[in-house]
Amino acid sequence: MDRPITPLLDTIAAPSDLKVLSVAQLSQLADEVRAETISAVSVTGGHLGAGLGVVEMTVALHAVFDTPKDKIIWDVSHQCYPHKILTGRRDRIRTLRQKDGLSGFTKRSESEYDPFGAAHSSTSISAALGFSVARDLGGEGGDAIAVIGDGALSAGMAYEAMNNAGHLKKRLIVILNDNEMSIAPPVGAMSSYLSQLYAGEPFQELKAAAKGAVSLLPEPFREGAKRAKDMVKHMTVGGTLFEQLGFSYLGPIDGHDMDQLLAVLRTVKQRATGPILIHAITKKGKGYAPAEAARDRGHGVGKFDVVTGEQKKAPSNAPSYTSVFADTLVKMAAEDSKICAVTAAMPDGTGLNKFMERYASRCFDVGIAEQHAVTFAAALAAGGMKPFCALYSTFLQRGYDQVVHDVAIQRLPVRFAIDRAGLVGADGSTHAGAFDVCFMTNLPGMVMMAAADEAELVRMVATAAAYEDGPSAFRFPRGEGVGEDIPEDAEPLEIGRGRMIREGSGVAILSFGTRLQEVEAACESLAAKGVTPTVADARFAKPLDRDLILRLAADHEALITVEEGAVGGFGSHVAQLLSDEGVFDHGLKFRSMVLPDTFIDQASPRDMYAVAGLNAEDIEAKVLEVLGVDVLGKRA
Amino acid sequence: MDRPITPLLDTIAAPSDLKVLSVAQLSQLADEVRAETISAVSVTGGHLGAGLGVVEMTVALHAVFDTPKDKIIWDVSHQCYPHKILTGRRDRIRTLRQKDGLSGFTKRSESEYDPFGAAHSSTSISAALGFSVARDLGGEGGDAIAVIGDGALSAGMAYEAMNNAGHLKKRLIVILNDNEMSIAPPVGAMSSYLSQLYAGEPFQELKAAAKGAVSLLPEPFREGAKRAKDMVKHMTVGGTLFEQLGFSYLGPIDGHDMDQLLAVLRTVKQRATGPILIHAITKKGKGYAPAEAARDRGHGVGKFDVVTGEQKKAPSNAPSYTSVFADTLVKMAAEDSKICAVTAAMPDGTGLNKFMERYASRCFDVGIAEQHAVTFAAALAAGGMKPFCALYSTFLQRGYDQVVHDVAIQRLPVRFAIDRAGLVGADGSTHAGAFDVCFMTNLPGMVMMAAADEAELVRMVATAAAYEDGPSAFRFPRGEGVGEDIPEDAEPLEIGRGRMIREGSGVAILSFGTRLQEVEAACESLAAKGVTPTVADARFAKPLDRDLILRLAADHEALITVEEGAVGGFGSHVAQLLSDEGVFDHGLKFRSMVLPDTFIDQASPRDMYAVAGLNAEDIEAKVLEVLGVDVLGKRA
Repeated sequence: MDRPITPLLDTIAAPSDLKVLSVAQLSQLADEVRAETISAVSVTGGHLGAGLGVVEMTVALHAVFDTPKDKIIWDVSHQCYPHKILTGRRDRIRTLRQKDGLSGFTKRSESEYDPFGAAHSSTSISAALGFSVARDLGGEGGDAIAVIGDGALSAGMAYEAMNNAGHLKKRLIVILNDNEMSIAPPVGAMSSYLSQLYAGEPFQELKAAAKGAVSLLPEPFREGAKRAKDMVKHMTVGGTLFEQLGFSYLGPIDGHDMDQLLAVLRTVKQRATGPILIHAITKKGKGYAPAEAARDRGHGVGKFDVVTGEQKKAPSNAPSYTSVFADTLVKMAAEDSKICAVTAAMPDGTGLNKFMERYASRCFDVGIAEQHAVTFAAALAAGGMKPFCALYSTFLQRGYDQVVHDVAIQRLPVRFAIDRAGLVGADGSTHAGAFDVCFMTNLPGMVMMAAADEAELVRMVATAAAYEDGPSAFRFPRGEGVGEDIPEDAEPLEIGRGRMIREGSGVAILSFGTRLQEVEAACESLAAKGVTPTVADARFAKPLDRDLILRLAADHEALITVEEGAVGGFGSHVAQLLSDEGVFDHGLKFRSMVLPDTFIDQASPRDMYAVAGLNAEDIEAKVLEVLGVDVLGKRA
Repeated sequence: MDRPITPLLDTIAAPSDLKVLSVAQLSQLADEVRAETISAVSVTGGHLGAGLGVVEMTVALHAVFDTPKDKIIWDVSHQCYPHKILTGRRDRIRTLRQKDGLSGFTKRSESEYDPFGAAHSSTSISAALGFSVARDLGGEGGDAIAVIGDGALSAGMAYEAMNNAGHLKKRLIVILNDNEMSIAPPVGAMSSYLSQLYAGEPFQELKAAAKGAVSLLPEPFREGAKRAKDMVKHMTVGGTLFEQLGFSYLGPIDGHDMDQLLAVLRTVKQRATGPILIHAITKKGKGYAPAEAARDRGHGVGKFDVVTGEQKKAPSNAPSYTSVFADTLVKMAAEDSKICAVTAAMPDGTGLNKFMERYASRCFDVGIAEQHAVTFAAALAAGGMKPFCALYSTFLQRGYDQVVHDVAIQRLPVRFAIDRAGLVGADGSTHAGAFDVCFMTNLPGMVMMAAADEAELVRMVATAAAYEDGPSAFRFPRGEGVGEDIPEDAEPLEIGRGRMIREGSGVAILSFGTRLQEVEAACESLAAKGVTPTVADARFAKPLDRDLILRLAADHEALITVEEGAVGGFGSHVAQLLSDEGVFDHGLKFRSMVLPDTFIDQASPRDMYAVAGLNAEDIEAKVLEVLGVDVLGKRA
C-alpha cells in the first residue's frame, strides 16, 4: 500500500511543533495532512468529506491555540481525523473505526486532546460553555473552541446553548464551519439565512482580495487599546441573528485560506472577551476530486481506491433493512395518500430519499431536529395523516420527551420506524441502538415490534400503517437482511401475537428481533447434542403475547428470552408477566439474554455481539448451562 | 361562595356566540371571563397568572377564528382556563385539577376545542406546523394558531419548529405572548433581544396612540391588492431575528387592547400566506392586584381568598423534599467550592433559588433548555467542577440523549437531582415522574438512588457529592417529607448497599423510594393478622445490593419489590439478577409492584397511588395474596 510523501508531517510529534512553522509551512502541512487523511480512509473507510473540509482549520487551530490546555470541541466529530493525525495518533490512524483501533470520533478516554467526545450532533457549544464557566470558576484553564457545522445549527440544542452563552457573556469561541451541507442537502430557514450572509458581494470581495482584506486584521494588534469587539464589528458583514443572540460575529472567512484563518484566530485569541462566532466557509471533501464530486461529498465511505475514488464495496446478496423499509413504505404510499414520512436530516440513512423522490409533498426532512420531528409527526396524526417517523434508535433518544408527552399520552397514531436498532458496528457505542426497547415499551399504549428478518419488517410496516388506535414502533438493524423473500402483499399482523418457529422440548427460546437467526444457528448446533429447543418469535414486546409466553413456560423446564437491547426491555416485560402470573412460584429456569451493562467499542456487529454474548455460541452455551448439560451432551 | 356577576358570559354557550358581539361587548366579556377565572382558581388553586394574562387574547382569538375548525394550540397550556370557560366547560371550571374534574391543561380527550394537549413547554409551533401541513395535504381544515410565551422560546424545540416552518412556508400563525416572564425571571439572550424590540419608542408610541396607530390596519382591507406581507412589514418595528427564520413579524402589540387584538387578528386571518409571528405584550396576572404584585405573578397558587389574595395553605409539619435537597446542597457548597448547580428555568421549583442567593456565580438557570442543561453540566464536570443538575423527572426526558451521549458514555460525574419522582397530583399524567428509573438505570455506569424519606435524601446528596467515578442520580417526590430528623453531618452511603428496616419472616418486601412509608403501614396492619414481613430499603436501583437481594430471596418464601415507577425499572433489574442467579429455578414467589400500564389522571397523590395500586392496603393485599393467606389471616 503506497503511503503519501509527507516530509513535514513526519517531523510533527505534537501540536506544539506547529508553533514554529511559517504560514507557508503550515499550508504545506495541511496538504500533507489531507493526503494522509485520504490515504488512511481509503484503507479503513469512514467519514472522508468532513475531515477534508477542515484540514486547514485543524492545522490553524493547533498552530494558534495551546492544546490540550485550550480545548477544541469538534461537533459530531466525524471531521476529527486530521485532528487525530496531528495529536499523537498518526501511528494508529489506519485503525480508525476498526476493532481495538481508534474511534471514528473524538473520545476522552483516547487522548487528552479530546476534551469532550461527540458523535451526535450539536452538543459542542454547550460543552464549550461548560468548559468556559468551569475555567472561570477556578477549574481547568484554557480557551474552549467549538467547531460546529451549519447542519448542526438546525438542532435546538445549539440554539439553547447560544442563548445561554449570550446571556452569560463568558469568553467562548464558536467556529461555524459552513459547508452548506450537513449530511444531506441543507434544509431549514437557518440554512437560507446563512446563504444570504455570503450570497452578496462581501464574501466574494473578501475572496478576491483575500490577503489584502485580511491583512487589515493585525492592525488592531498594534493599536492595543481597542477592544476585540470593535475590531470584530469592523469585519462583520452580516450575522445579526447571532449578534441578537449575544455573540460577536466575525466573517464570513475562507476556511481553506491559511492566511485568513491564522490572522482571524490569532486576533480572536488575543482579543475576545465574550462569546464570539467565526463564520468560516469550507467545502466538504475539499482537495479530493472524487469526494468533491459526490452527492454527499464523501460523508461516509467504504474502503476505496485513492486514485479513482472507487469504493470497494463488499458484495451483498440481500437488500438492506433500510431499503426494505423504504421500498415498502413507498409502495404503500401509492395506495394510501394519508401516508407521509418524517426524517431528521437522514433522508439517505433512513431510505426516505426514495419516498421523497416519489412523494415530495408528503416527505419532510426537518433537519437535525428530533424533538420537532416527533411532535410535528404527532400533529400530522392529529390532523388525520398517517405519519411514519423514521429515526435511528440512538437519535430517537433526542425526541424522547416528545414521544411521551405528545404521542403516547395523547395516544396519537405516529409510527416510529426505528432504524439501526442494536449494535451498529464501526460507529461504536455512541450510535448503539441499545435503549429504545426499554424507553418505548414502558409507555402506556405503545405498540412495540422488532423484525426478525426483512420479510417480517415488511409485515410490520403494514401493521403500523393499519394500526390506528395509538402509537406504534418497529425496530430493525443496520445492514443487510438474511435473504428472505419479500412478501408481495403483506397482511398486517395481529397486534400482540407472536409466532412459533419450531416445536421442541425442554427449553424454549423466545426471540425478539434479528437474534432469531443466531437462535436458529444455535439450535442446529444443539441438535447434534440431542437438545431440541422450542423456538418462538415474539414479534411484539408490547403488548406481549400472554398466551404464547405462558404456554412456553408451562411446557418447558426453561425459558430463555433473547433481544438486542439493554435490561429493562423485552425480557423484563416477560419477567414481569411471569411473576405477576405466579409462574416463578413453583420454579422456572428463566433467563433473559440482553446487552451487557457496558458501552461496547466499535468493531464489526458480529464482533460486538460476541463481546455482548449474544451470538449463536452464546445462546447455545446458555441453553446447555440452564439445562445443566455439559458440552458433550450429558446432563449433570 | 360568592360568584362574580357575569351577565354577558352567562349568554355564551359556545365560541360561535362571540361572532355577533361588538368590540365593547368583547371587552366586557373579557372582564367577566377574568372575574370567573379568579373565582374558579380561588376554589381550586392552580395556575392563575398565566390565564389572567391572556384573557383578552383568548376572547379575541375565539371571536376572530372559527374554532374548533381553526385550531388554537396553547403552549404549556396552563393559561387555558379562560379558553375552557369559553369552550363549553364553564360548568365544570371549579373542578379544575381535581380528581375526576377538568385537567389543568388542554387535553384532546376533554374537548374538541383542544386540538393538541400540552403541559411541557415549547411544543406548540411544531404542533401548529403539523396541523398546517396536514391541512394542505387534504387533512382536517382550518388555521393553526400557536400561542407561545417568551420563556418557552428559550427551548430549542421552538427554534427547531420555527426553522422548519420558515423553510416550508406554510400559512401558520404564531402568537408570541411576551410577558417578560416564564415561571422565573427571564434568562437568556433571546429574552434580552425581545426586550429590545419594545424598549425603544415604537411600542410606547403604539401604546400612547393605541387606537390611532392600529386604526391604520384595516386600511389594506379596502385596498385589496396588497399582500398581507406588505401590510405586516408596514407595522414591523423590529423582529429581524424572526424574519431571518422565515417568519413575517408583526408587532409588538398590546395584548390587553381588544381593538388592537381584533384588528391584527382579523387582518392576519384574511391576509396571511406563509408563517407569521404576532408579538403581543401582556402582563402575567393582569387585572388581579395580588397576582400582579406577586414575585411569580401568580404562577401556581393554592386556594385563596378572592378579596385579599391570601392563600389558604394547608398546615405542614415537615419540610418539602425539595427544600431539604436545596438546603443540603447549599450547606455542602459552603465547604466545597467545586459544587455548582444547574436548573432549567425552575429555580423556585427545584429550590435552587436558595443556592442562587448564596452562590450566584455557581448557580446556572439556563432557561427551558434541558438538552443544553445536561451537556453543559457534563462539561462542567469535565472541567473539574461538581455539578448538580436539578430537574423534574418528567423534564429530564427532554435531556435523555444528552444523559446517554454526553454523561453516561463519557462517565462524567454529573449528579442528577430528580425532583417530582413518581405521581405528582394536580398536574396529572403529563407531569408524572414515571419513567426515570427505567431510562436511567439501564445506562451503563449510572448510579441510581431513591430516597425513602428526607433524612435519606440528605445522605444521598452527600453520596452524590462524594462519588466521582461517574454519573449518579437520586430521585425524590413532590411534597413534604415524613418528619424524620435531618442528619447534621450526613456521611456518604456505601455505593450499592441497601439497609434492613425490619427482620421478619415468610415474605420480604424490598422498597425503592418513598413507598417505604406505605410498606411500613402495611406491615403494621399485617402484624395484626400474624404476618410479619421482612422489610428492606434498597436505596440503590443501580448498582443493586446483590448480597442483600439474594439473602432476602434465600430466606423467604416470597419477595416483593415496590417502587414509584413503571415496569422496566428497579423491579425489572431485581428480576434480572434473580434469573441470572438461577433463583427462580427452584421457585420463588416474586412480585414486582410498579405503576400500572396506564397514564393516570390528576387527583391527590394518594388517590393517584390508589389507582396505581401502590398504597399500604395494596401492598398488604399483595402480601396476603402471595402467601395465600385470606383476609382473616388463615393460609389457604
